[in-house]
Amino acid sequence: MTPGLMQTAPLSTTAILRHGAANHGRRQIVSRTVEGDIVRYDYAQLARRAERLAKALKDLGVRPGDRVATLAWNTHRHLELFYAVPGLGAVLHTVNPRLFEGQIGYILRHAGASVLLFDPSFAATVDRLKDQVPDLRHFILLTDEAHAAPGAVGALCYETLLAAQTPGFDWPVVDENAGAVLCYTSGTTGDPKGVLYSHRSIVLHAMAGGLSGAFGLSAHDVIMPCSSMYHATAWGLPYMALINGCKLVLPGDRFDPPSLHSLITGEGVTFSGGVPTIWTMYLAYLAEQGASPGRLNRVVIGGSAVPRVMAETFKQRYGVTVLQIWGMTETSPMGVVATTTPDLDDLTEDERDDVIWTRQGRTQFGIELKIVDGSGAELPRDGQASGALLVRGPWTLRRYYRGERDVVDAQGWFDTGDIATIDAAGFMRITDRTKDVIKSGGEWISSIDLENVAVGCPGVRIAAVIGARHPKWEERPLLVIEPHDGHVLTRDAVLDFLRPQIARWWTPDDVIFADIPLTATGKIDKKRLRDTYRDHLMEQPAPRDAPVAQTQS
Amino acid sequence: MTPGLMQTAPLSTTAILRHGAANHGRRQIVSRTVEGDIVRYDYAQLARRAERLAKALKDLGVRPGDRVATLAWNTHRHLELFYAVPGLGAVLHTVNPRLFEGQIGYILRHAGASVLLFDPSFAATVDRLKDQVPDLRHFILLTDEAHAAPGAVGALCYETLLAAQTPGFDWPVVDENAGAVLCYTSGTTGDPKGVLYSHRSIVLHAMAGGLSGAFGLSAHDVIMPCSSMYHATAWGLPYMALINGCKLVLPGDRFDPPSLHSLITGEGVTFSGGVPTIWTMYLAYLAEQGASPGRLNRVVIGGSAVPRVMAETFKQRYGVTVLQIWGMTETSPMGVVATTTPDLDDLTEDERDDVIWTRQGRTQFGIELKIVDGSGAELPRDGQASGALLVRGPWTLRRYYRGERDVVDAQGWFDTGDIATIDAAGFMRITDRTKDVIKSGGEWISSIDLENVAVGCPGVRIAAVIGARHPKWEERPLLVIEPHDGHVLTRDAVLDFLRPQIARWWTPDDVIFADIPLTATGKIDKKRLRDTYRDHLMEQPAPRDAPVAQTQS
Repeated sequence: MTPGLMQTAPLSTTAILRHGAANHGRRQIVSRTVEGDIVRYDYAQLARRAERLAKALKDLGVRPGDRVATLAWNTHRHLELFYAVPGLGAVLHTVNPRLFEGQIGYILRHAGASVLLFDPSFAATVDRLKDQVPDLRHFILLTDEAHAAPGAVGALCYETLLAAQTPGFDWPVVDENAGAVLCYTSGTTGDPKGVLYSHRSIVLHAMAGGLSGAFGLSAHDVIMPCSSMYHATAWGLPYMALINGCKLVLPGDRFDPPSLHSLITGEGVTFSGGVPTIWTMYLAYLAEQGASPGRLNRVVIGGSAVPRVMAETFKQRYGVTVLQIWGMTETSPMGVVATTTPDLDDLTEDERDDVIWTRQGRTQFGIELKIVDGSGAELPRDGQASGALLVRGPWTLRRYYRGERDVVDAQGWFDTGDIATIDAAGFMRITDRTKDVIKSGGEWISSIDLENVAVGCPGVRIAAVIGARHPKWEERPLLVIEPHDGHVLTRDAVLDFLRPQIARWWTPDDVIFADIPLTATGKIDKKRLRDTYRDHLMEQPAPRDAPVAQTQS
Repeated sequence: MTPGLMQTAPLSTTAILRHGAANHGRRQIVSRTVEGDIVRYDYAQLARRAERLAKALKDLGVRPGDRVATLAWNTHRHLELFYAVPGLGAVLHTVNPRLFEGQIGYILRHAGASVLLFDPSFAATVDRLKDQVPDLRHFILLTDEAHAAPGAVGALCYETLLAAQTPGFDWPVVDENAGAVLCYTSGTTGDPKGVLYSHRSIVLHAMAGGLSGAFGLSAHDVIMPCSSMYHATAWGLPYMALINGCKLVLPGDRFDPPSLHSLITGEGVTFSGGVPTIWTMYLAYLAEQGASPGRLNRVVIGGSAVPRVMAETFKQRYGVTVLQIWGMTETSPMGVVATTTPDLDDLTEDERDDVIWTRQGRTQFGIELKIVDGSGAELPRDGQASGALLVRGPWTLRRYYRGERDVVDAQGWFDTGDIATIDAAGFMRITDRTKDVIKSGGEWISSIDLENVAVGCPGVRIAAVIGARHPKWEERPLLVIEPHDGHVLTRDAVLDFLRPQIARWWTPDDVIFADIPLTATGKIDKKRLRDTYRDHLMEQPAPRDAPVAQTQS
C-alpha cells in the first residue's frame, strides 16, 4: 500500500472533552444531584473539574488500564468520571445499582476495580459488599462535605478530593483501541458479561449518533438522558452532547413525572429518551395536569417496543416525534433508529407512522446488519424473510471482558440473539428473541408480535408471551397479562380481542393473569416466566379450539 | 493499557459504498455528462458499476498503492472512480484540468500515475501531455462507445471496459491509513504539492461534515456539489451523500446559471456549494428571469469571503441560508463552517447575520484550531488577538506527497499560512494570508479587510489589495479594482467610499483599474499582481494625503 499522509492522532474521549470546552465552553450542564439540589455549570468548567478529578485519582494510585467503578445515577459528577477516568487511560466501570447485590459483587470482582465511587444512597449496599470485593482499595462518596458519611468502608468525599487539586492537567495520549468504559449486560441467562468499549468505539458511535438519520443533534438542542448513565453510557449522550455542543440536563435519580417535568419545561429540554415506562407515566401526568412538555420535540424510546398509543399521543397532542431505537450493550448501544427516509415519501402519513412505530429503525453509517437462516446463508432484505440478526461495525463487541475467545464469526459478524426482518429501505424489525420464539409444529410464532397486539387490549398493562411445552405441538403460545390497577379482564375477552388481528394458529392456548417479573433493566423477565409456566399446558386438557395438525394457518 | 474489546475493522471508502447501497439503495444519482445528456441511477447501481470498474482496473494491472489519475468534471463516472480506485487499495489522483499544461504534466510525473481517465473535452490536452509522462500506461476516455475517439494516445472507452465485466467484486480489506485520494494544491508559490488523503481521514471528515454544526445533511436532502470533484474531493460531498443517504446531483462541466437552474429546480436540490463567482452569476440570472431556486435552502460558499450582498439577497429574497466555509486542500478541506450556535442567541438578527457572514466559521469535532504569535505562544480566543492560524486533527495533513519531512510541529499542529482571530464561541475569522499581510511602518494592515470593504463599492466586480514597496513605510496598501462591465469608477470615488469604513492609515496609497488575474482554483492571483505592481509606489510621488510617521492611526 501507499500510506496516506494525514495525521493519525488517536480518537479519544479527551478529544471530545477538549472540543466541548474550546468550542462550546459556555454551554450549560444542569444536574440534579442525589442530595436533591440543582447544580449548574458549563463545559469549560466541566473540563476544569475533570482535570482536578484526574489528578485526584492519579494521586490515589489509578494507573492506565485500572478499572474505576461507579454505582451512580445521572449526575454531573458521574459525567466528570466519564471523561476523567478514560482520559487517564483507565477504564470506567459503570455498575448497574438495580442488580441484586450478589450480582453487583460478582461484577465488581470479575472486573477487578480498585476504586469505587458511589452515590450516598448506595452507602449501605457498599458497606455490605465491601468484604466480597477484595481488590477495592478506595471508596469515594459522590457528594460534598455536608453530605458525606464515611460509613464502614471509610469512604472519601468526592468534592473534598477535587478541592485539594488545582485545575490544569496534561492528559496523556491514549491508544484509541484502549479500553475506556466497561459495562456488564444484565443477562437473563448465565453470569453477567462485560462489554469493554474502546476510545475509538465511543468516538465513532458518538459522531454517528449526532447525524440526522439518528438523533439529529444540534447546538440548539437541550438533551436530557433518562436512560441510565450506568447502562451502556446512556446511549452515548454524555459524549454526543459535547461533540454537538448541546446543553445537557441530568435528572439525577429522579425519573418521576413531576421531577422530569420541572426540568423539561424549566430548562427547555428539546430531546430526551428512555424506556417506555417513564414516558407512560409522564404522559399520564401531562394529561392529569393539563400541562404541555415545553420545547420537547423528540423522544427516543428503546429497551422494548413503543406502544402505538404512546407514539400517537406524543405526536397528536404535543407535537413530539417519537423515535424508536434498537440496540444492546454489545452495540454501544446504538444499532438502529427509526427516522424517516424518502423511501417512505409515497406513503400516507398514517402508513409512514406505522413504519416508524413498528420497525426498530435503520442503521447509520458504521453499523451493518444482515439476517441469516439456520445454515448461516444471508436472507433477502424484503421485509418478509426473517432470520437471526447479525451485526458488525466499529462500535460492536468483538469479545466479552476476560472472555477466552471472540464472539464474532470470521467476517466479524456478531449474533444478536434476535430474530428480525430487514426491508429494502434498510428498516429492521425485531420479530423475536431467538430464545423467545415459539416453535409450534415446526413453524415459528413471534412472541413479540403477539405481545404487541395483546398490549393494545383495553385494561392490559403488560403482556408477555412465552412458549409453553405442548404434548402435540412441541410448544404453544401462552399469554401472561398484568392488568392495569382496577381492571378486571377475562380469558375470553382477551382472546376475542386478539383473534381478528392474528393468524388462527397463533392464538394463545391459555391466558394467565399475574404480576409480570421484570429484569434489572426493566425488561420482561421471560426466563422467570418460563420457569414458572413452562409446563402449564401439560397440566390441563388442550383447549377445544387448538389448531389441527396439517392446517396450522 | 487494557485493550478495548470492540471490533476494529478499518474505516474505508468501501464501507461508505456498502452503507449507501444497502441502506439507501434506491436514492438517486443524477448526473449531467460532458456529452450533455442526463444519466439517472441509484446507489445500488452505483455499487454494481463500481464493482465492474474495479475489476476492469484490476485487469489493466492496477495494484494496491498504484496511482490512477483523472482529468474530469463532476459526473457519475468520476463518482464511480471515487469508490472503485480506493476500494482496490489504489490511490485516486484527481488532477485539476484548469492548471497550465506544464503544471498538469509536472503533477502527473510527480505522482507517477499509471492510468489516466479523462473526459473527452480533455482529449487534445492528453494527446499533448502523453510524451511528458512516461509512467502512464493506460488512457481511458470517460464516455461511451458513441463518443469515444481513441486519439493519439489510443485511449480505451470507459463504458466498453465496464460492459466487459460482471457486477460483484470481493473488495479487499484495506488498511485505514492507506492512501486513498491524492490532490495537489495549486500553490501560488513553488511547485504544486500533493496531499494524500487516507481512508480514515476521508471517513472521519465525511462523518463530521454531515453533523448539523457543519452541513446538517439528511436523507431528505438533495445535494449538488458545484465545487469541483478534482479539488479536495468537492468538499467530501461524494462521500457525505452516501453516509447520509442524500440524493446526489452532479452538474458535469456546466456551471452556467441556466444549466444549474434547470437541475436545482428540476431535481429539487436543497443543498449546494461552490465559490462565490458561481453564485453571483446565479443570483443575477434569478433576478433577470424573475425565477426562484425551488427547494434550495442552504448554499455553502468557500474559496474566498462571501460578499454580504450575496448572503443578504439569498436570505431575504429566496429564504436560502448562506453558510461560509473555510478550509484548504490540506484540511480535506473542511476546516470550519459558519453555522449558528446558542452563543449568538442574545444578538439581534442583524448582528447574528453579521457574525455568520463575516466569520469563516466554527469547528466540528475533529478539527482543532489555535492562533499563535511570532514566538509560537498561543494567543487568547477573544475575537481580538490575531495570529498565525494552526490546525490539527485526523483529516489534517501531516506530510506532503513524496515530502522528506513532516510539515507539522511536535504536537501535530500545521501552520495554515493564514492570520486569524478566534472568539470565545469558537468562531474563526481570517484576517489575512501570512504572505499577503501588509507591513506598514511596523504595523499590520489586513489586505482581506480592505478588499471586503472595497468590494462593497458600487461598480466594483473584484477588489484586490497588495502590499507595494514604499520608500518610507516599507509597504503600503495598493488597491487594484476590476469594475463590472460598463461601470466607470474613479480613484477618488473609491477612496471616498472607503474612508468612513477604515482606519485612516489603512487608506490605499493608490487605486489601479485593471483585469485581475485568477489562479486555477478561481482565487485572486496575488503573486502575479505583486509581480506587476510591487514597485508601483516607487515610481511616482507619494500622494499628498499619505499618513504621517508617528501617527499612522
